Amino acid sequence: MILEKRIPISYLFKMIRWELLTITIFTLTLDKVSQYFQEITLNLSVPAFMGTAITLILSFKLSQSYDRWWEARKIWGAIVNDSRTWVVQLKSFLPKEHDSIKILSYRQIAWCYTVGHQLRKTEILEGEKALLDQEEWKHLKTAKHPALGLIDLQAKEISHLVRDGKINTFQEIALQDTLTRLCASMGKAERIKNTSFPKTYRWTMRFFIYLFLLLLGFSLTSMPYDLEIPLSVLISIPFFLLEQVAMDIQDPFENRPTDTAVSSIARTIEINIRELLGEDDLPEPIRPDKFYIM
Amino acid sequence: MILEKRIPISYLFKMIRWELLTITIFTLTLDKVSQYFQEITLNLSVPAFMGTAITLILSFKLSQSYDRWWEARKIWGAIVNDSRTWVVQLKSFLPKEHDSIKILSYRQIAWCYTVGHQLRKTEILEGEKALLDQEEWKHLKTAKHPALGLIDLQAKEISHLVRDGKINTFQEIALQDTLTRLCASMGKAERIKNTSFPKTYRWTMRFFIYLFLLLLGFSLTSMPYDLEIPLSVLISIPFFLLEQVAMDIQDPFENRPTDTAVSSIARTIEINIRELLGEDDLPEPIRPDKFYIM
Amino acid sequence: MILEKRIPISYLFKMIRWELLTITIFTLTLDKVSQYFQEITLNLSVPAFMGTAITLILSFKLSQSYDRWWEARKIWGAIVNDSRTWVVQLKSFLPKEHDSIKILSYRQIAWCYTVGHQLRKTEILEGEKALLDQEEWKHLKTAKHPALGLIDLQAKEISHLVRDGKINTFQEIALQDTLTRLCASMGKAERIKNTSFPKTYRWTMRFFIYLFLLLLGFSLTSMPYDLEIPLSVLISIPFFLLEQVAMDIQDPFENRPTDTAVSSIARTIEINIRELLGEDDLPEPIRPDKFYIM
Amino acid sequence: MILEKRIPISYLFKMIRWELLTITIFTLTLDKVSQYFQEITLNLSVPAFMGTAITLILSFKLSQSYDRWWEARKIWGAIVNDSRTWVVQLKSFLPKEHDSIKILSYRQIAWCYTVGHQLRKTEILEGEKALLDQEEWKHLKTAKHPALGLIDLQAKEISHLVRDGKINTFQEIALQDTLTRLCASMGKAERIKNTSFPKTYRWTMRFFIYLFLLLLGFSLTSMPYDLEIPLSVLISIPFFLLEQVAMDIQDPFENRPTDTAVSSIARTIEINIRELLGEDDLPEPIRPDKFYIM
Amino acid sequence: MILEKRIPISYLFKMIRWELLTITIFTLTLDKVSQYFQEITLNLSVPAFMGTAITLILSFKLSQSYDRWWEARKIWGAIVNDSRTWVVQLKSFLPKEHDSIKILSYRQIAWCYTVGHQLRKTEILEGEKALLDQEEWKHLKTAKHPALGLIDLQAKEISHLVRDGKINTFQEIALQDTLTRLCASMGKAERIKNTSFPKTYRWTMRFFIYLFLLLLGFSLTSMPYDLEIPLSVLISIPFFLLEQVAMDIQDPFENRPTDTAVSSIARTIEINIRELLGEDDLPEPIRPDKFYIM
Repeated sequence: MILEKRIPISYLFKMIRWELLTITIFTLTLDKVSQYFQEITLNLSVPAFMGTAITLILSFKLSQSYDRWWEARKIWGAIVNDSRTWVVQLKSFLPKEHDSIKILSYRQIAWCYTVGHQLRKTEILEGEKALLDQEEWKHLKTAKHPALGLIDLQAKEISHLVRDGKINTFQEIALQDTLTRLCASMGKAERIKNTSFPKTYRWTMRFFIYLFLLLLGFSLTSMPYDLEIPLSVLISIPFFLLEQVAMDIQDPFENRPTDTAVSSIARTIEINIRELLGEDDLPEPIRPDKFYIM
Repeated sequence: MILEKRIPISYLFKMIRWELLTITIFTLTLDKVSQYFQEITLNLSVPAFMGTAITLILSFKLSQSYDRWWEARKIWGAIVNDSRTWVVQLKSFLPKEHDSIKILSYRQIAWCYTVGHQLRKTEILEGEKALLDQEEWKHLKTAKHPALGLIDLQAKEISHLVRDGKINTFQEIALQDTLTRLCASMGKAERIKNTSFPKTYRWTMRFFIYLFLLLLGFSLTSMPYDLEIPLSVLISIPFFLLEQVAMDIQDPFENRPTDTAVSSIARTIEINIRELLGEDDLPEPIRPDKFYIM
Repeated sequence: MILEKRIPISYLFKMIRWELLTITIFTLTLDKVSQYFQEITLNLSVPAFMGTAITLILSFKLSQSYDRWWEARKIWGAIVNDSRTWVVQLKSFLPKEHDSIKILSYRQIAWCYTVGHQLRKTEILEGEKALLDQEEWKHLKTAKHPALGLIDLQAKEISHLVRDGKINTFQEIALQDTLTRLCASMGKAERIKNTSFPKTYRWTMRFFIYLFLLLLGFSLTSMPYDLEIPLSVLISIPFFLLEQVAMDIQDPFENRPTDTAVSSIARTIEINIRELLGEDDLPEPIRPDKFYIM
Repeated sequence: MILEKRIPISYLFKMIRWELLTITIFTLTLDKVSQYFQEITLNLSVPAFMGTAITLILSFKLSQSYDRWWEARKIWGAIVNDSRTWVVQLKSFLPKEHDSIKILSYRQIAWCYTVGHQLRKTEILEGEKALLDQEEWKHLKTAKHPALGLIDLQAKEISHLVRDGKINTFQEIALQDTLTRLCASMGKAERIKNTSFPKTYRWTMRFFIYLFLLLLGFSLTSMPYDLEIPLSVLISIPFFLLEQVAMDIQDPFENRPTDTAVSSIARTIEINIRELLGEDDLPEPIRPDKFYIM
Repeated sequence: MILEKRIPISYLFKMIRWELLTITIFTLTLDKVSQYFQEITLNLSVPAFMGTAITLILSFKLSQSYDRWWEARKIWGAIVNDSRTWVVQLKSFLPKEHDSIKILSYRQIAWCYTVGHQLRKTEILEGEKALLDQEEWKHLKTAKHPALGLIDLQAKEISHLVRDGKINTFQEIALQDTLTRLCASMGKAERIKNTSFPKTYRWTMRFFIYLFLLLLGFSLTSMPYDLEIPLSVLISIPFFLLEQVAMDIQDPFENRPTDTAVSSIARTIEINIRELLGEDDLPEPIRPDKFYIM
């Protein structure tokens, strides 16, 4: 997540450097070519309405990308809530100091980190070794879907507690409900990760932007040479930037600065859970050392 | 689902080939005709504002189509989550190694494939033979609504387990809830499949696009002949493409490249469920051999 | 619901015939009048930006109407799902071949048809005679709200089954939940039926369209007489059509071709329920004989 | 709620009479002033793009106001549904003819009217005397929040029924759930009532409209005197009307014609509940005597 | 929350004073510079379409900010509803005058204030001393997350009541559900607080506004000196104001006048709860002494 700090201009420049290069070469070429068609200039109305048109398309696209980004954040917010609820329920249903409270809570912490790593395809279950039973840990390392395996372990432990008479069947259902919601949140995050935004939509939009800049170039040929180039490039910047912003926020689990801050959120969950368990030695929240937090 | 790969230009061209042909013939004719009305040229303001107007209508239409597409994907995401929950619940409620776990889980896999086939009207229950009891399979082959029949079988089995005292009535309700959600997801997908986007809306939009191109043609008659034609065609491309993109994504169960990837999702569910059952020999995920995945 | 078939052009023409007549007379008059003010022509920028403005208002209005239409369809989708769930639950909770299964299922079919008729204010309970007990049927015929009466009967029967010990209290709650959802769906459909879209909003929009056409007429007076009239009329068509499309889809229970296809959906529910009950002689789905289905 | 009837033109005129007066004086002044700056005319492009700009802002504002209005209507739709469910549940859980059915149902009717009155700040609990126990009625008359007091009484009665063994604890939970939903609906309506639309947003929008009309006035100074004034006023009408429509529908509990028809809805609930109780002498629905219904 | 009162013009001016200063200096400079390029004027079409473009982007941005603001208000509305429900449930489940009713209700009041203070980072738990047990209060003062600690205490007390046989396990689940919803509301408010709006999005928008004003300045150089400056500044005002309004409402827990009125809402909850407990000496609602309420 990009923070409320100063973004380095280099970061913004890098986002659209290829597009700017393309458009510069393109305008230079156009200028050369148009000298042979001196008499032809396109009325500015045409690129003007096309500029409005692509802004419309871009705005809708940006709005849809923003919705994906916000949905991703909501999903992780739900994971925070359900993780807290999980521990509050365990503490309230089980006798004080019962072993399972700690096991089930630590496994929940591990699950949060694991879901984050699976989404970003980073080193899964590396840091979670200390939170899990070693046997389990080894088994999960080789699993196709370790996070689902962890949920399965939680459900198994709950059913053991029912059979041992530690919790009654109503409490079982309440815990199962929390687990179902956690399982659903994981699935929702995976849905966003695995569904690419309609490609043809994006392709068309890019085509539209370039067509607009081409027609704009034609319309401005009457301007002096050394003003037309910077003007074309300047006008193209916000369009390319907006398109790139939309691209960045629509895929929030790609291990990039614009990601949903899943590591940081998982750490917050760990701190909350450990405090609920009455531990004193709480880990520190993740602090950003740059203009973003992961 | 179109993947994050290079889309062949031929695919994009095929989407709008008839519209482009129409518009080319149309502009050529217009040019011939307008020679007799040399003196008349329409002010460019008229087609310019109409261009903005149709982009607006198109953007809203695209946004509504996108919502249908995304809703379809959400429905299948919910099917993934509830299928996983179904198996996690069965494993946690029933004694280990109980026969019904496998039967109910395999039937759930079969159900996922069947819903996909029913939506796309492809060979229903062909590949699902191995997952079902042969008696059941034969019966369902002739059913009007095989997927609903499968849900009915699941419910029946659950009530048998209750009567045999294998699960208690709270657990029955929890499983029934999962089944109700699955039944609702199926119904929601069918709603999208069976409800066509308001036809009059689309008709009006197409009329609007052609009217715009007609007026644009009139306004550009002052331009040289060999520039007006390509310009008109170029400007028309993004409008036709956007309209086609909207058309494609609004109906996501038509056995087309832009479909929701229901076969691939059903396979993922199969892999998840088989892993939860502790099987070792897991099937491979579906790999795309083209620029899309089904 | 308008189907994916060719819509007769006469249907579209009928939608806006009065508006077109008005605008023709109006433009003819304007042309006569403007001969006395030859020197005055309005700059095209004014009607141009107003054209954009009304398209914006129209697009938002269309989007809100579409949401109502889609919400209506979703409500009926939920009725399909809950009707199926109702029968699946009954079959799973009650002993096989218990009389109440059939009674409660048939009454559910009757309820679906009745809700449709009540919304459209068509012959309520006429076709449902065979599905209901004759005593009940007579009583409901005179009721102010027959569909609510049917839900009441269902609830009463459920409580009888509880008192007779046929279903336990958990199952009662599960069935009550389904009934509550059905009751809510009915209420939601009634809400859409009984809430007219803000009238002042629509009035303003129409005023805006006519103002735009008036100013457009003034701006085009410099054009030849025999081009101005058809041009004005042509340009007005999409605006009137879009307004009419919005009007049509926003009220989806008016016994019109653009309605939500409640009769057809109720028939689908009947087929599904009868198949779940194991009947062989299933009714046919409703087939459209025109370009729409009711 | 404004009905599908002819709205008196005077009603529409009253909505914007001050704005129209302002704009007339304003344009007259401008015309006088501009005679001293004869040579200066602003290019029409500037007010034209500003006209588009404010329509955009207005459309979004209108869309947000519409959402508030529709949400208010949805909340009252939910109150209808939950009131019906409440009575259906009571009749199904309690023995036939049990006194509490009538008491709890009548109190529900009283609650609906009371919520309406509290929202509109009209004579609370005046007409509800006959529906309530006189002791209760006196007590509630002095309460800070009578509607919440009524919900409290309902909950108390339910817990008495549980203690007397008339309903079991599952049925208690089901009734409590309905009560919780009713309590939530009340809170949601209060939220809309008590949250004013961001004031700075509205202020900016009005500033924008006047700025637009100022610049438009400047641009039209080249037109003849007796055409500029009516033109400016005509163009300003839809903008002021749209702003006023947005203002009216965004606050739907102000005892105005554009209100959500809470009295009429409460009456419908009364009729439904009395019919469910088997009463014959049902009250009439509220009939509009004007172009709106309260 | 800004109230429906007159906003001091100074407040609005302060919102955009730096932007206005920048734009004045900027236009003055531009005017000086452009004297050397007398012959160059940009066609007004370019800034005109860019003005439309940034209004579009701004409108969408404003709409997203509004959604955050409204979501924040909805979350606090849910806290109101669930707090009332909490007390209604306690009173209905527990024997009259049971000590726990008061303890659990007062702690709920304290929780509401605490969540508000935590969100705004103001003096947490200062005013809540009287509502809590002194032991608890001291413990929470040092906690990392006092509000979560309070929820934990509530859950613990509920489980004590279950073990003492004061409430049954169904009632436990119902109270747990309410607690889960409260915990989720807290988490949702924290999500809004901790997620900054995509920074690159905002940066691009500001760049776009300045680019527009630069081009507008270039286009107006033909106007007299003493008209161009005020015109440029006037036109820039609504854009900067709208951007600032969006900025203000998107972060509703910053201890600013545009905040969600969490202190005032918490006071309302206190009044409602104390009235439900039958207390006579109710605190006064918070009265605004300015044009806003906190």
